[in-house]
Amino acid sequence: MNYIDPELDSPKEECGVIGISTPGNDAAQLAFFGLYALQHRGQEAAGIAVADGQAVRVHKDMGLVSQVFDAGALDPLVGGLAIGHTRYSTTGANSERNVQPYVVETMHGPLGLAHNGNLVNADHLREGLLKRGAGLSSSSDSEVLALMLAATEGESWEHRLSQVMGEWKGAFSLVVLSGTKVIGCRDPWGFRPLSMGRLPSGGHALASETGALRTLGCDSIRELEPGEIVVLQGQMARSIQGVEPAERQARCTFEQIYFSRPDAIWDSMSVHQVRQRFGAAVAAQHPVEADVVIPIPDSSMPAAIGYSAYSGIPYNEGFVKNRYIGRTFIEPTDELRRQGVALKFNTLRENIEGKRVVVVDDSIVRGTTSGPLIKMIREAGALEVHMRVTCPPIAHPCFFGVDMGTHDELIAHHLSVDEIATHIGADSLGYLSVPAMMEALEREDGYCNACFTGDYPIAVQLKLPTTAKKRFDGALA
Amino acid sequence: MNYIDPELDSPKEECGVIGISTPGNDAAQLAFFGLYALQHRGQEAAGIAVADGQAVRVHKDMGLVSQVFDAGALDPLVGGLAIGHTRYSTTGANSERNVQPYVVETMHGPLGLAHNGNLVNADHLREGLLKRGAGLSSSSDSEVLALMLAATEGESWEHRLSQVMGEWKGAFSLVVLSGTKVIGCRDPWGFRPLSMGRLPSGGHALASETGALRTLGCDSIRELEPGEIVVLQGQMARSIQGVEPAERQARCTFEQIYFSRPDAIWDSMSVHQVRQRFGAAVAAQHPVEADVVIPIPDSSMPAAIGYSAYSGIPYNEGFVKNRYIGRTFIEPTDELRRQGVALKFNTLRENIEGKRVVVVDDSIVRGTTSGPLIKMIREAGALEVHMRVTCPPIAHPCFFGVDMGTHDELIAHHLSVDEIATHIGADSLGYLSVPAMMEALEREDGYCNACFTGDYPIAVQLKLPTTAKKRFDGALA
Amino acid sequence: MNYIDPELDSPKEECGVIGISTPGNDAAQLAFFGLYALQHRGQEAAGIAVADGQAVRVHKDMGLVSQVFDAGALDPLVGGLAIGHTRYSTTGANSERNVQPYVVETMHGPLGLAHNGNLVNADHLREGLLKRGAGLSSSSDSEVLALMLAATEGESWEHRLSQVMGEWKGAFSLVVLSGTKVIGCRDPWGFRPLSMGRLPSGGHALASETGALRTLGCDSIRELEPGEIVVLQGQMARSIQGVEPAERQARCTFEQIYFSRPDAIWDSMSVHQVRQRFGAAVAAQHPVEADVVIPIPDSSMPAAIGYSAYSGIPYNEGFVKNRYIGRTFIEPTDELRRQGVALKFNTLRENIEGKRVVVVDDSIVRGTTSGPLIKMIREAGALEVHMRVTCPPIAHPCFFGVDMGTHDELIAHHLSVDEIATHIGADSLGYLSVPAMMEALEREDGYCNACFTGDYPIAVQLKLPTTAKKRFDGALA
Amino acid sequence: MNYIDPELDSPKEECGVIGISTPGNDAAQLAFFGLYALQHRGQEAAGIAVADGQAVRVHKDMGLVSQVFDAGALDPLVGGLAIGHTRYSTTGANSERNVQPYVVETMHGPLGLAHNGNLVNADHLREGLLKRGAGLSSSSDSEVLALMLAATEGESWEHRLSQVMGEWKGAFSLVVLSGTKVIGCRDPWGFRPLSMGRLPSGGHALASETGALRTLGCDSIRELEPGEIVVLQGQMARSIQGVEPAERQARCTFEQIYFSRPDAIWDSMSVHQVRQRFGAAVAAQHPVEADVVIPIPDSSMPAAIGYSAYSGIPYNEGFVKNRYIGRTFIEPTDELRRQGVALKFNTLRENIEGKRVVVVDDSIVRGTTSGPLIKMIREAGALEVHMRVTCPPIAHPCFFGVDMGTHDELIAHHLSVDEIATHIGADSLGYLSVPAMMEALEREDGYCNACFTGDYPIAVQLKLPTTAKKRFDGALA
Repeated sequence: MNYIDPELDSPKEECGVIGISTPGNDAAQLAFFGLYALQHRGQEAAGIAVADGQAVRVHKDMGLVSQVFDAGALDPLVGGLAIGHTRYSTTGANSERNVQPYVVETMHGPLGLAHNGNLVNADHLREGLLKRGAGLSSSSDSEVLALMLAATEGESWEHRLSQVMGEWKGAFSLVVLSGTKVIGCRDPWGFRPLSMGRLPSGGHALASETGALRTLGCDSIRELEPGEIVVLQGQMARSIQGVEPAERQARCTFEQIYFSRPDAIWDSMSVHQVRQRFGAAVAAQHPVEADVVIPIPDSSMPAAIGYSAYSGIPYNEGFVKNRYIGRTFIEPTDELRRQGVALKFNTLRENIEGKRVVVVDDSIVRGTTSGPLIKMIREAGALEVHMRVTCPPIAHPCFFGVDMGTHDELIAHHLSVDEIATHIGADSLGYLSVPAMMEALEREDGYCNACFTGDYPIAVQLKLPTTAKKRFDGALA
Repeated sequence: MNYIDPELDSPKEECGVIGISTPGNDAAQLAFFGLYALQHRGQEAAGIAVADGQAVRVHKDMGLVSQVFDAGALDPLVGGLAIGHTRYSTTGANSERNVQPYVVETMHGPLGLAHNGNLVNADHLREGLLKRGAGLSSSSDSEVLALMLAATEGESWEHRLSQVMGEWKGAFSLVVLSGTKVIGCRDPWGFRPLSMGRLPSGGHALASETGALRTLGCDSIRELEPGEIVVLQGQMARSIQGVEPAERQARCTFEQIYFSRPDAIWDSMSVHQVRQRFGAAVAAQHPVEADVVIPIPDSSMPAAIGYSAYSGIPYNEGFVKNRYIGRTFIEPTDELRRQGVALKFNTLRENIEGKRVVVVDDSIVRGTTSGPLIKMIREAGALEVHMRVTCPPIAHPCFFGVDMGTHDELIAHHLSVDEIATHIGADSLGYLSVPAMMEALEREDGYCNACFTGDYPIAVQLKLPTTAKKRFDGALA
Repeated sequence: MNYIDPELDSPKEECGVIGISTPGNDAAQLAFFGLYALQHRGQEAAGIAVADGQAVRVHKDMGLVSQVFDAGALDPLVGGLAIGHTRYSTTGANSERNVQPYVVETMHGPLGLAHNGNLVNADHLREGLLKRGAGLSSSSDSEVLALMLAATEGESWEHRLSQVMGEWKGAFSLVVLSGTKVIGCRDPWGFRPLSMGRLPSGGHALASETGALRTLGCDSIRELEPGEIVVLQGQMARSIQGVEPAERQARCTFEQIYFSRPDAIWDSMSVHQVRQRFGAAVAAQHPVEADVVIPIPDSSMPAAIGYSAYSGIPYNEGFVKNRYIGRTFIEPTDELRRQGVALKFNTLRENIEGKRVVVVDDSIVRGTTSGPLIKMIREAGALEVHMRVTCPPIAHPCFFGVDMGTHDELIAHHLSVDEIATHIGADSLGYLSVPAMMEALEREDGYCNACFTGDYPIAVQLKLPTTAKKRFDGALA
Repeated sequence: MNYIDPELDSPKEECGVIGISTPGNDAAQLAFFGLYALQHRGQEAAGIAVADGQAVRVHKDMGLVSQVFDAGALDPLVGGLAIGHTRYSTTGANSERNVQPYVVETMHGPLGLAHNGNLVNADHLREGLLKRGAGLSSSSDSEVLALMLAATEGESWEHRLSQVMGEWKGAFSLVVLSGTKVIGCRDPWGFRPLSMGRLPSGGHALASETGALRTLGCDSIRELEPGEIVVLQGQMARSIQGVEPAERQARCTFEQIYFSRPDAIWDSMSVHQVRQRFGAAVAAQHPVEADVVIPIPDSSMPAAIGYSAYSGIPYNEGFVKNRYIGRTFIEPTDELRRQGVALKFNTLRENIEGKRVVVVDDSIVRGTTSGPLIKMIREAGALEVHMRVTCPPIAHPCFFGVDMGTHDELIAHHLSVDEIATHIGADSLGYLSVPAMMEALEREDGYCNACFTGDYPIAVQLKLPTTAKKRFDGALA
């Protein structure tokens, strides 16, 4: 099902990108294995475009990487250059047309493009294209980026990119494929991560997270600078400053808190260790007497380990998570749910019973799952339940590629911390403050904390699409 | 699998289009049932785009109409306006990007387009678009047509269409969908059919063949004139002369000979009756003493009936055709084929044995199946086998939407009629001559007979894509 | 979905079987191509079991032969012995467990079995097995036949078969596979056809119809005798009289009238020619002044040719049938149908208008389609419509493998010929009488005409399963 | 693909079973959600059979629970009684016939059966059935169990069960479904777990693990006794001692070590806590000076927590596991693997670098993954790597339902502990001894430790099927 209905098809999403240049012919295979390591950044759709020095081929579809690329699908994707994309699940199944990479023929030859981020002036740019007589076949920023590149004069794609990227306001970490090269670039604010490394083959790879580069066996891994353009060709890698870095740097703090896989290195720091430091910091800011520290599996484990280490309260597991509950899961009926059918988590009663419990979570967005989880902990016999959250209250939507929901949907937009504690039934609730979080990050600025503070690094119109999607609080069944 | 490689993806194809405007909300359903009646015009892919007064939605995919639109696929396609397309099978499975209707957003609002035909100046038009900075995501003429419309100024789609259609050289019967209307138009030469009728609901329908209109219960059926534009909105239908008709009219004679389903009315004539007249005409031109007239099932039945009626030689069936041999059929190995495994046809020996047989076929293209079929007739005990073909020898490729193959592939380009008779093992072979064919058509001119004569109604460059596909002579297994 | 609910899963069905013994390893391939030529005998499910001298392997599933055996499915089926089955569509999709061939391990080694027909004492035999402690995993006769064979002592499968087949009352043409041989056998009444031929490889094949044997390149084709057992091993074929032929032979007349493909030879007669003779006979019995004879496509074509030849009234086509309307077709809504959406047939008005029309059909079962077809002929401008049916009125259900429906469902059980004529709106209606039909068959007896006469060759309890399925009168859309 | 080839289709497998009796009609839904919580016990196939007081229906297929039961598949499974099964992945895809529950009609009415375990006298029992004339359509023990029950006289299924279960030697925890009741029973040795609980609806549920019962909201959970039969009907539950418990009880220690989900209660103990105790015990038995304790995720986490708590060495994560690597994963080519493409695990270098590392694993079977994992830890900068295994060396195959592989495949059958340490590249390697393990279990006997000791609780023939499958050491990519 495709459609043209911008209202229904929100461009706000978190994604993963990869780019490969290798002397061999197996760039698509490397892109495929790299996407596996970025799968957590988007499970709705995946795609790989490949070039062999001349033509560009693309295979993409809705589904997980493993579903889109079944046996045989990679076979025709022969060539030494590739870009890939994995995409976050939006509300509907209606977005087939928006699956990336986006590939077009242009006066300069074939062009493929995949990106992670969100432009705040996309509507303005779309209008500009339409006025110039373009036809837009999707609602994605990728097409806008690609068609602007297609219409730009210049001697090379990197040249054209540097000419036009100054017009793009917002978050974009993107990979571009021509018939003969792969180009990576990062917006001047540095919202979203993008790193590169040297492949064992002597070529190079680009990826949203360093974990994907390590999965491919890369060394010499470094982050792209804000505004930097990197051109990959065979074993060669060349760097250009496409535009000046913005005065106010704006890394997304949420990559540190939740998005990135814990093995990522981001801003020269191990995400796993940052999360341990966040756990220690919230332990320092909100100490409590307790018998056990438990994480909400799996993402809060490092933070809970950090809390335990700082506080001296023993770490243990309090929940077993059913790893087979997938995206297409058939939900229990309300009646069964009322009777207590609870599929996603079981408590480990013996680790909880008769104890004062600290439960560590990395974030609360809508606040719909914390309450039921705390109730389960109490039913398993906890004497007290103290919730600690390793980020500040989220009170403002994101316009730079993360789907937080609207103001209306954010619990911290409506309720104070005390009110939230009452709402979710915790004996106490402690959030990490912004200053404490930045201190744990060992940075004074350079991060975008707009979802906590409302202070956006680029002026935005505070109007969200009506269909903003819900991301964080997975359903508790 | 999508790709950008114009060489591999020939735009030459025979297709079917449909357009619906109805006061109700079930335009997509009507388009769906209409496409069923056009399925013989293309079995590779199908699609329907629908509009509800505002947004345009499209569902399309590779496969038969029944495969693309499984249960539930039609449900979201709500609205009173729809266009649909069914597409001829090309050699590869590589053309997902070219599946129609093509849908884009433009400065004038959403636009959907589906067409039957082929432009001879498509390369020139593509280059023009690219030079203006466009990005082309497919190799189909549809995108070229749509993007040219998108970039044209004018107060309405029909106005823009009339402005730009003069630039399009070649065959095009097309249906256009905006948010609020359906438009049909036919090229000034009149190569491909396109008819309209009034639906029982009071709305109107457009279709490549009148049989599809009758399937939908239409009355007041008439053909669009060359160069005519028809605008459908609710129950209203308005006609505009978009461009002047060409001086030399050029209906495709092959629609009469083979393509159209026998229940079509084309050029005010019943195709079934035209084929009977062709059969009678070849009987008059090439009489023979014989005991039975048999058709090659199914398409030559009307012609064989006509031959029998004119000659007085009894009509009977000589072959049983296996109707379950489909497009994805697993072929017997060469060894099994050598042993005589022959799946598609069995002879009806009792109707053939000891008889002098006239076998009627509607055309010979590459000449690969006639020989084996004649051999089967002989093995069933025929005393003589006389082949009669109800069209002239095909010696030239088509550039207007029919995939005849290249000069090299056409047997009549290389061999004389006598040589062909020897090649296929017939005791005699008679083709209908061009004058006799036109006489049977009761027309003096107005038809394109270029595949017989080489006299093309528009100047063409005699260079075919290297991947020209083979259409007519289905494999004999 | 499997289930144990004999009421829902009627064992009454028409099917096709095949058996192969070849010196090579490609028996499964030959069975596959043979099943293609038997596909018209059953489109619900298909299966092939193969033996390589030791183990027996089977692949079977719901669907057409081409769907069940997609690329690769045949690859593991290596061996020189094979049996195959294709099965008629029942009402529900609930019969996965009943898909044939049925394969079991027994004390005598592996055993595969597939059959065409229906036992009238199946319930009695099932009870016998259950009382002996068996567990039955399906509701099919095949399992009963196989488990009775499994429990029988004897030196060889053919020996065991001859011991037990006398207990089986009803119609059964069956093929049996052990690790080392293929066995065919036919019930002593000879209800259902089964023929054998010599393969080009020197081996032998068994098939429900001779057309399938000819498709495989067989010669020396002959029918199995009633009660005969044939044992195939490598290139060897051995015949045994399993049981004495019944005194009253009972070939199914409906194989001649409708079931068999017209290229079948059955009772030493060409089915196509028998149908021409039926057409001539009904012309002799029910002459009428008319201008054109048209068939209901496709099955009535030979009969209409025969009617035309005898009467001198010209034959022509009156309907175009849409060949793409398949089993999983989405039906038009009642509203669309009311408006005239009619997918399956269009009339060829020019062949009908202003004419007195004789329309030939091979049978009327429930009488639901004749009326709408006659209405279409009148709407196409026919002056008169005379219906001729090339079999007698069907007034009684079949218990021997053909699903005619119950007494209640048979129109000729309720109405006289005149009443039927009025009901379907024909100007006149003529059925072939039983004596005229037998005369056209050139036989005095040896056929089962119970569906016409109620005179069953084996005593049956006149109680049909409540869910008897409807076969003949395909829906007219 | 089905086949009869016992050699290829090993019956040795670990599985999960569930049984439901509820006053409502949603037993199948409860069984479905229960199977989700047992999915880790088998991912090859799943099935549910349901009874509504009369008929028994079953739906089963290859695949995960979520794949077998897609939307709509549960709808027809209406009734208050259900059994379900989830099955361990065998090497081939060849076992469709063996998917459970097995359902047959018998002289006593319909019978469904699903089981977990393995009989050591299955071949003997099969032969007995065949000699009595049975036909066996699968190679599974389930069919043997069901057909023996079908052939047994007795007033009720529980009566028949108690009569026949004494003949079954080996491990069997089974659930039986008739038209009117659900029966659970456990072998007299108590090899495999089976528990029951009271549903919120007032009915009862049986499940291999208590976690599944808690998922359904059950209370009053208890284990079935060895030899016990439990009969469930509506809200009623009745217990019978089917056979006397064996003198030598033989719970599978591996359920405690690895199989069961950590939230299971087994032998009145929390599996999570038992694993913590195993971790502490191996810390006591094999102390080492180190800086960090890391688990092999996910199964060794509780053991590593226990090791850390006992030793005082801090617990941390050392690996990130890619949760998207599924069963149908496309493996990297050898060349890519050689270059370092490693998909399943990345190390968390910052938690390892410069440290002496204790890595805790729950078992070593073939020893193929330990080496590569230790190499990764070293490459991440560990100063020392000490491996601790929370079970004794596995030197003997299992004949009671766990696929350990053959003697040949077990590394501890060939190598001493020191040799294994060298082989896998560990600085030290410590296994838990059998006595220390039993002490940690707080039991003196009652467990089967045959895979460690070779002392089988039932005499077995030390000959494994040649196709014994590999279970434990998942591939490291």
